[in-house]
Amino acid sequence: MSETAPTRTPLSPTPRSTPTRLKDRAAADRAELDAVLDAGLVCHLGVVLGGSPVVIPTVYGRDGDTLYLHGSTGAGNLRAALRGAVSVAVTQVDGLIYARSAMHFSMNYRSAVIHARPVELTDPEQRLHALRIIVEHAAPGSWDAVRAPNKKELAATMVLALDLTEASVKVRTGGPRDDEADIAAGGVWAGTLPMRQVFDAPISSEDLEPGIEVPEHVLARVDRVPVH
Amino acid sequence: MSETAPTRTPLSPTPRSTPTRLKDRAAADRAELDAVLDAGLVCHLGVVLGGSPVVIPTVYGRDGDTLYLHGSTGAGNLRAALRGAVSVAVTQVDGLIYARSAMHFSMNYRSAVIHARPVELTDPEQRLHALRIIVEHAAPGSWDAVRAPNKKELAATMVLALDLTEASVKVRTGGPRDDEADIAAGGVWAGTLPMRQVFDAPISSEDLEPGIEVPEHVLARVDRVPVH
Repeated sequence: MSETAPTRTPLSPTPRSTPTRLKDRAAADRAELDAVLDAGLVCHLGVVLGGSPVVIPTVYGRDGDTLYLHGSTGAGNLRAALRGAVSVAVTQVDGLIYARSAMHFSMNYRSAVIHARPVELTDPEQRLHALRIIVEHAAPGSWDAVRAPNKKELAATMVLALDLTEASVKVRTGGPRDDEADIAAGGVWAGTLPMRQVFDAPISSEDLEPGIEVPEHVLARVDRVPVH
Repeated sequence: MSETAPTRTPLSPTPRSTPTRLKDRAAADRAELDAVLDAGLVCHLGVVLGGSPVVIPTVYGRDGDTLYLHGSTGAGNLRAALRGAVSVAVTQVDGLIYARSAMHFSMNYRSAVIHARPVELTDPEQRLHALRIIVEHAAPGSWDAVRAPNKKELAATMVLALDLTEASVKVRTGGPRDDEADIAAGGVWAGTLPMRQVFDAPISSEDLEPGIEVPEHVLARVDRVPVH
């Protein structure tokens, strides 16, 4: 991850969200931020706990200008998140870049890094809305098909909202960017190995009663992957 | 990501690396940490910059008890990493868990979270070794096939080493874990939607001279994916 791309203006370029390096790979517009967040499945949440950074993977959901996170009310990392600023990163790798020299190896990727001060949602309707957004992000079409959270579950759940205004997006696309001398020297293969995430055929739960078919909102996600 | 699994002892259970929640999903042994790190491609590095956490995606490599990171000597995040503790997370999602109730939706995943104080490598041989480990992690078989880093490239590159002794691993496997009442009520599909990353056919660089074939160490990574 050490290449260059056309310069674009970062979103809300405060000192913290402006990439200090690779500035020229920063991709500007808000639509691109939304696209990266909507395409991702898991984010990495960074908090400061006892003076040290802690990074944890967690699910999320986006609605408009807000990112939602949730977790157990007993989760120390979420409580730490409420005491100050957090950083949230969402990254998809789209390919490996094979270059003619070791230092030009790279990856094609899309990544978003958000800086925010989370607030805890206390309004019951807002909390339910946020939980719906998170579940629908990971499993579209599921919320209305399953039992809603009950009082006990809601009491054990913390829901956090983060504003998306301070964020940067970086996108690398295209093939290797080798030194001219290495291209001229020749003799070494260079190119891109594309990567993507695929869903395989659903596996019904062992305790599922007979006669329940896999719903279309699940089946629709399974890739019909071409054979190579 | 809110389920339970058999209890195991975390690696070096200091207060910070011991998960405060989901303790019972902590997977113990060092082999499991190595497996998660070796299977991942990108890590998320968390540093504290100006009092706030910053999380960035970056490539890495592991050799024995050491994790290597690299970047530009001008990268503020890497310089920040050298001023204190860092957290590094590597996460793979293996499947989505569709449950009979919203709050039991989950994911199957393998994740490692490392806490360490990075040291900058200054010995030329150690630095080259670390860079080889990083390139070979992302693109096995490539280091010896391409031009090695030159003096100028090395001068512009910072290489960090992190000790792996303070780390925790969490692994979730298996299907949904629904409440008995929801299972008894029936009528809702529940199961697992498996996920994985696949490599597609390599794309040779546009500036590649004719007659250079895709090498076997690249071709070997392309999945022969079954059609569903």
